[in-house]
Amino acid sequence: MNKENTYNRIAACALQLFNEQGERNTSTNHIARHLGISPGNLYYHFANKDKIIVLLFERYRSTLIGFFTQTPLPDSVKAMADYMAGIYDILWDYRFLFSDVNSLLMRSADLAGEHNRFTREQFMPLALKYFRVLQQQDILEIDDINARNLAINLWLITKYWFDFNSSINGATPEHREKQIKARGIYRSLSLIRPHVRAKYLAEFDRLIQPLENGSNAE
Amino acid sequence: MNKENTYNRIAACALQLFNEQGERNTSTNHIARHLGISPGNLYYHFANKDKIIVLLFERYRSTLIGFFTQTPLPDSVKAMADYMAGIYDILWDYRFLFSDVNSLLMRSADLAGEHNRFTREQFMPLALKYFRVLQQQDILEIDDINARNLAINLWLITKYWFDFNSSINGATPEHREKQIKARGIYRSLSLIRPHVRAKYLAEFDRLIQPLENGSNAE
Repeated sequence: MNKENTYNRIAACALQLFNEQGERNTSTNHIARHLGISPGNLYYHFANKDKIIVLLFERYRSTLIGFFTQTPLPDSVKAMADYMAGIYDILWDYRFLFSDVNSLLMRSADLAGEHNRFTREQFMPLALKYFRVLQQQDILEIDDINARNLAINLWLITKYWFDFNSSINGATPEHREKQIKARGIYRSLSLIRPHVRAKYLAEFDRLIQPLENGSNAE
Repeated sequence: MNKENTYNRIAACALQLFNEQGERNTSTNHIARHLGISPGNLYYHFANKDKIIVLLFERYRSTLIGFFTQTPLPDSVKAMADYMAGIYDILWDYRFLFSDVNSLLMRSADLAGEHNRFTREQFMPLALKYFRVLQQQDILEIDDINARNLAINLWLITKYWFDFNSSINGATPEHREKQIKARGIYRSLSLIRPHVRAKYLAEFDRLIQPLENGSNAE
């Protein structure tokens, strides 16, 4: 096994264990044991656990930016729902980043800086562009103050969705992945619903309403 | 000092330390030392830290219910903003409950049960009544689906406000209490804004917009 391989295997294994067992419950020793490598070998690649977390955050961020730059901006109600589903697929893959976010951020100045820059410089302008396109298609009607607030509130609700879902529905088993995602997509889109023009509302509800309880998801 | 006094002094001291230093960083030994009592004396009143947390949650809940039952439902834009400010005053006093909520809830089955019952049985019906009154006053225009989602999204955004604020603005010094609250009130009211009737929007913005950066708060 070459060095590159070990590096990536450590990252993949850490991501899996962080997601399934919680970052706080997963030490570098757990990761090494799970891979059948020595702790020394792991430390050769990552000086500590936070270095692994920073790498995974970078990968999450570049995956999300890749999605944003490669997916056409939604120009229909259906495309809007699909777009949100695409975002939740990525969030799910890196969901450990969204539970106990602050204790992660506070431990790592690097991570906190990256995280804020990402939100401010990349997410906000993109969300506003997304609303503009949907307005041009006459699907949304939204003024500037509501648009800015919608971007922030979407960020907040999406960021805390996994945590909120656990707190109201109990720790949902991992295999309910589709249901958890469907409910999150519904929750995020519910913020957009007040701005959907009347003529599109029936179509919006037909697509969105079944997601509320994740009932069409399995 | 009689028993009743010690019991309440422990609760008050724990609340202060949990809020200011974080619940996770505060042990029962810290609390006892801070009060100048023996750990044994503390254990006489509370078998463990979770018992103190459950008591503080009960107090938070009964304070909030007291506010809900004693404050007239808002029937003007001004009353709506004041009402939200009243809620944030209570949330602030018990803010430790809203950081790392899930690790608290997961540790205590009692707390998780109470918490969900409280949200479902008390908060949701009240929020829907609140929206109905504002609709009768012709201040809001909101359909049933949006009303239910608004209640849930208000709950979610308000619950995570303190955590979200720290993540985007960094750990805000405690003395910026008014600013943190003002921003939270703005964030929560921003969810209601899409439903405010056009004729009330100028008044709404005049009252609300200065809160966005907490600029009128100090």
